[in-house]
Amino acid sequence: MNGTSTMMDFLEEPLPGVGTYEDFNTIDWVREKSRDRDRHREITNRSKESTWALLHSVSDAFSGWLLMLLIGLLAGSLAGLIDISAHWMTDLKEGVCLAGFWFNHEHCCWKSNTTFTDRDKCPEWKSWSQLILGHGEGAFAYILNYLMYVIWALMFSLLAVLLVKGFAPYACGSGIPEIKTILSGFIIRGYLGKWTLVIKTITLVLAVSSGLSLGKEGPLVHVACCCGNILCHLFTKYRKNEAKRREVLSAAAAAGVSVAFGAPIGGVLFSLEEVSYYFPLKTLWRSFFAALVAAFTLRSINPFGNSRLVLFYVEFHMPWHLLELVPFILLGIFGGLWGAFFIRSNIAWCRRRKTTRLGKYPVLEVIVVTAITAILAFPNEYTRMSTSELISELFNDCGILDSSKLCEYVNDFNSTKGDDLPDRAAGPGVYTAMWQLALALIMKVFITIFTFGMKVPSGLFIPSMAVGAIAGRLLGVAVEQLAFYHHDWAIFSGWCSPGADCITPGLYAMVGAAACLGGVTRMTVSLVVIMFELTGGLEYIVPLMAAAMTSKWVADAIGREGIYDAHIRLNGYPFLEAKEEFSHKTRAMDVMRPRKSDPPLTVITQDTMTVEDVETIVTSTTYSGYPVVVSRASQRLVGFVLRRDLIISIENARKKQDGIVSTSIICFTDYCPPLPPSSPSVLKLRSILDLSPFTVTDETPMEIVVDIFRKLGLRQCLVTHNGKLLGIITKKDVLKHIAQMANQDPDSILFN
Amino acid sequence: MNGTSTMMDFLEEPLPGVGTYEDFNTIDWVREKSRDRDRHREITNRSKESTWALLHSVSDAFSGWLLMLLIGLLAGSLAGLIDISAHWMTDLKEGVCLAGFWFNHEHCCWKSNTTFTDRDKCPEWKSWSQLILGHGEGAFAYILNYLMYVIWALMFSLLAVLLVKGFAPYACGSGIPEIKTILSGFIIRGYLGKWTLVIKTITLVLAVSSGLSLGKEGPLVHVACCCGNILCHLFTKYRKNEAKRREVLSAAAAAGVSVAFGAPIGGVLFSLEEVSYYFPLKTLWRSFFAALVAAFTLRSINPFGNSRLVLFYVEFHMPWHLLELVPFILLGIFGGLWGAFFIRSNIAWCRRRKTTRLGKYPVLEVIVVTAITAILAFPNEYTRMSTSELISELFNDCGILDSSKLCEYVNDFNSTKGDDLPDRAAGPGVYTAMWQLALALIMKVFITIFTFGMKVPSGLFIPSMAVGAIAGRLLGVAVEQLAFYHHDWAIFSGWCSPGADCITPGLYAMVGAAACLGGVTRMTVSLVVIMFELTGGLEYIVPLMAAAMTSKWVADAIGREGIYDAHIRLNGYPFLEAKEEFSHKTRAMDVMRPRKSDPPLTVITQDTMTVEDVETIVTSTTYSGYPVVVSRASQRLVGFVLRRDLIISIENARKKQDGIVSTSIICFTDYCPPLPPSSPSVLKLRSILDLSPFTVTDETPMEIVVDIFRKLGLRQCLVTHNGKLLGIITKKDVLKHIAQMANQDPDSILFN
Repeated sequence: MNGTSTMMDFLEEPLPGVGTYEDFNTIDWVREKSRDRDRHREITNRSKESTWALLHSVSDAFSGWLLMLLIGLLAGSLAGLIDISAHWMTDLKEGVCLAGFWFNHEHCCWKSNTTFTDRDKCPEWKSWSQLILGHGEGAFAYILNYLMYVIWALMFSLLAVLLVKGFAPYACGSGIPEIKTILSGFIIRGYLGKWTLVIKTITLVLAVSSGLSLGKEGPLVHVACCCGNILCHLFTKYRKNEAKRREVLSAAAAAGVSVAFGAPIGGVLFSLEEVSYYFPLKTLWRSFFAALVAAFTLRSINPFGNSRLVLFYVEFHMPWHLLELVPFILLGIFGGLWGAFFIRSNIAWCRRRKTTRLGKYPVLEVIVVTAITAILAFPNEYTRMSTSELISELFNDCGILDSSKLCEYVNDFNSTKGDDLPDRAAGPGVYTAMWQLALALIMKVFITIFTFGMKVPSGLFIPSMAVGAIAGRLLGVAVEQLAFYHHDWAIFSGWCSPGADCITPGLYAMVGAAACLGGVTRMTVSLVVIMFELTGGLEYIVPLMAAAMTSKWVADAIGREGIYDAHIRLNGYPFLEAKEEFSHKTRAMDVMRPRKSDPPLTVITQDTMTVEDVETIVTSTTYSGYPVVVSRASQRLVGFVLRRDLIISIENARKKQDGIVSTSIICFTDYCPPLPPSSPSVLKLRSILDLSPFTVTDETPMEIVVDIFRKLGLRQCLVTHNGKLLGIITKKDVLKHIAQMANQDPDSILFN
Repeated sequence: MNGTSTMMDFLEEPLPGVGTYEDFNTIDWVREKSRDRDRHREITNRSKESTWALLHSVSDAFSGWLLMLLIGLLAGSLAGLIDISAHWMTDLKEGVCLAGFWFNHEHCCWKSNTTFTDRDKCPEWKSWSQLILGHGEGAFAYILNYLMYVIWALMFSLLAVLLVKGFAPYACGSGIPEIKTILSGFIIRGYLGKWTLVIKTITLVLAVSSGLSLGKEGPLVHVACCCGNILCHLFTKYRKNEAKRREVLSAAAAAGVSVAFGAPIGGVLFSLEEVSYYFPLKTLWRSFFAALVAAFTLRSINPFGNSRLVLFYVEFHMPWHLLELVPFILLGIFGGLWGAFFIRSNIAWCRRRKTTRLGKYPVLEVIVVTAITAILAFPNEYTRMSTSELISELFNDCGILDSSKLCEYVNDFNSTKGDDLPDRAAGPGVYTAMWQLALALIMKVFITIFTFGMKVPSGLFIPSMAVGAIAGRLLGVAVEQLAFYHHDWAIFSGWCSPGADCITPGLYAMVGAAACLGGVTRMTVSLVVIMFELTGGLEYIVPLMAAAMTSKWVADAIGREGIYDAHIRLNGYPFLEAKEEFSHKTRAMDVMRPRKSDPPLTVITQDTMTVEDVETIVTSTTYSGYPVVVSRASQRLVGFVLRRDLIISIENARKKQDGIVSTSIICFTDYCPPLPPSSPSVLKLRSILDLSPFTVTDETPMEIVVDIFRKLGLRQCLVTHNGKLLGIITKKDVLKHIAQMANQDPDSILFN
């Protein structure tokens, strides 16, 4: 008689509820995986019986791949849709296309038949002042454009926050902290549902278009996970099993990052490093497939109009010099400091929002922040453009034909050889750009703190990268000019002679972006790989790695947690961090319930309690499960029974089974003891008893207990001493204990 | 009183042996990790006391990074050295440089001052016939060159096999199966020692130069792991802890693949996917660092003379068409079939070697195989050149200036536009090359089976890739010619009009190489990423993935195991596969010892046995540990004591502690029971008792037990029923059970 398999037979009978979880509860990974293995075993066994069953078995084996394909297609399409809409709506703030209002600025000018000098200034595209006043010059036109910009921004953000508030409260934020929690084995019903998907997709476009200091990359992960979760419903294998579903969600997260940056390998590593909890190798391969499909779907939609896979395509021509590691490390330090500063301030502000009256007016908050952002952003060219355009421009290496202000160098055509541009003196345009960028930096640094965490979808990747890219570009230009004017200095001799192209400010911007992103999220390998995929050159991995490493060390020295972990803790999610080692000397007996002063552990005996006794225990306590022992005197452990299963089974038996009354004995053993003939019939519940509960001794160090909980994904563990049952440790107890040891409030851990 | 920490205090006293392992034994990951945490805790606590201790704590934290740097530098340098020497010695088989015998062919011609038309034919480079006869023409010169080629090959391989046999028997083979086993927690003393390193480095050069059908990529992983293991001795933290050392070895394996292919990200993923067992995220980041350092060290040495990081640098210009997926999938099928065929035949041959008299003559075997290889190889240009050169040439996309036979197309300069070469008719050179390649394919397919597993260092990556590359190039040229002559066929219409460059045979070669490598090793993500890093274009990931996926499916359908796992099983290494799910319905009670018919479990009681009783138990049994119980009657479990610790402690006490005689009571409890004053003093051994042994119930399904062993890295686990100790399951029992369930001989599992 196998405990698990009997339970399974039982589960396949339509007794709804047994084996499922309530909202805001932790799943039992061991049980879920056992159930999947049982299911798999059954299909394999049946497959030998008939051709139909064999086909079923084959289709079952391939359903995972099919699911990945569907997720990739859906996530890629949605990402393309979001990109196109956000592009159009961002441009709508500045003007409209006469050739068709559905064209964005760039497309409008492509469609234009007339020839014109400046690529951006085609006659079909009208700014609002041109449309209303008939001309675009003068102070009045400027004020009109300014006003329209602010009004559109406010409209977009108002619509976004109202939609989120009215239809899908889970659609706000980046979603990554919650997805991490869900993947670690927690149930949040509706978080990955279809309403969340629809509303998040729409409001993400609105939020990005409104010009708020936020990105769409984090929310795209959430969108992809929603796709994954919804598509799971097509396949019984994934719909019914919480552990299998989490494998799919891990892959979906990889697809999300893959479409966000056009970096499939980086996406898989991001999912592995940052988001996922249980990530078997099979999932790695499938995630990679999903990420690739998603990336190629996005590319076929071609939202950037350049058939490039990546968001910020850059190509640098010059190698870097070893001495340049010094400014790169400086950028790393800046990134680490900004990351730590951002996390502290943002968490402080979010805590304020949670605890004071501020949190009661989410709509007002969004409106005020949007208004401030829009009013401050419009006058500065670099904040007026969308943040991803800004980053693109900052990463860009100035070519000979580039006409942007950042590339306004004093040209000396005598020293130019072919495509290679030597380092040149900065022209007035560059100096103006520097000032504007410095102002943009200050604005972004502060406004992002207040933006992240509002009731609209908001990602952090793009704002962090923008801060780093601005800082990097500023430093890059400074080093470039230094090398140009002082090429006789010893540090420049040998590699930066006059007429040589030795400093690439765009590379500095990229390194700065990596450093700031690293400081905020504490990503490591995935960060470097994502940035590597953006450039495609192994050459620049070393600068990126140096910056990412410095940034992580500096930020870790100030505060251990990345932004996502900080938000998980702020919200009290029951997330058991797999990266941090538990390093205290406590033992299981210090953590288990009951404590020394408490009444003894509530147990159920295997064959002496009546239905009424058990019902009294269930109603008088709130525990989610009870150990079953041989007898109260011996306290020898037999198994563990879940509260939910117990309630459902007793209710069911009272309704449907003859002779089950309050005085019926409940029997968990194989062979129930003979009873006098007058007594009511026995209720046999061995089938819901877990005969293999996990146990540890009271002397087990907590570090090992934490490890067991993490690696096996337990929900609870029983504690014994010399073979006698002493107590129980649940995941919540473990989390509370960790919080206590880290001098945090243990009651901050909510949920079960 | 904390059990583990008391054990630690004890261990820090110089009682040599306690806490170490014997050769060919399995380590206990939980204990090792506990020990490291204790050590870390101590250093952290002490760091608050003095500045010196603080410095010590900081240096301890950074020692891991320093170690990675050193491993990267050493592995990169050794790889460079091996590359340069192998290049030179390979060329030595054909001739010698007059300008200096230490130049290889290519260098010799660089150094040449005279001008000459054919880059390869400089006057300073003399073939053996030119040197001896004074001319290189005619049949006699050919025979002389042939003879010299065979003689050099025999000399090299003889030297290699003698060195391996005489000095370091562990230096043979690829080493990856053994490294996998070691990383899973097994002790093989000397396998990663300095002698192995020295001999493997030398003999690897010899074996590669001898022209045998083997590669240096697998052995480079072994070499890098030796470097890692040896450098571990510099740091107490890694020297003394088997678990920490394995983290370093995982990173070293990544560095090895990184230098083998110039693919740092692929190296890390290879280590994660294929080699490593315990791979925490911290190790991922460090591995990446080590892999990068190694790759850049190799690049600074610049053995390929082109300052490229990668072994086979290719750049394709044309995108591929969706219809080309059909031939790519065909290549995948070929790769899968070849992989499965190779594994079966190679394992059959190796089993023959192990079981028959064949194994007694390793030197003769190597000589015979070398002679056959050399004699068959010389007449065919494509087998005479080194395999990596062959692969390079096959991957190469024919440019307008390429003069090799493979690029001898009928040029029609009217239709050529710029650099873009249209598809052209194959010239006679291409047809000759096709025949020679087909012969080379047949030879490589068969000779590799007999080569892999001989007593010389031998890697499989390069021969597998060569087989695939040849097949791919053949198919590529066939498709190209088909498209050229039949561009009016419906399948080619629209994308392959005359004058278009639509088929790239080099890409087919690359896809074929990936397919065959995948079929043999069953790598997935790491394979695609390594190939991606070779080309640097995300464009070609989809063909690579299609081929790798097909190849894995086809090969898995024929036989589940990759070549490394097959060799692990052949050698009976105790490797607990983490990828395969255990899917049988057995329970702990079916696997545990003692079986139903056996005498009861040997246990030690906590405070009633004398020294003599325990010594009798230890000498009459061979178990590596004994459970300690309250009393034989109750069978309530107290803890677990290791045989080795018990023997050492008793011996030590008898020598050094007064009053310990054979009749002394051994007491494992905190407070020992009072004894009459006449009795000898009590031997307190609580400090060596593991108070937190892992237990499972007898009803626990084996799938869960296997999972626990895998994830926690246990060495043994006790089995209880209703709180009473019933039996024990060791890792060996688990492995035997898995073998039995898979219908294999359970006694094939050797070692403990």
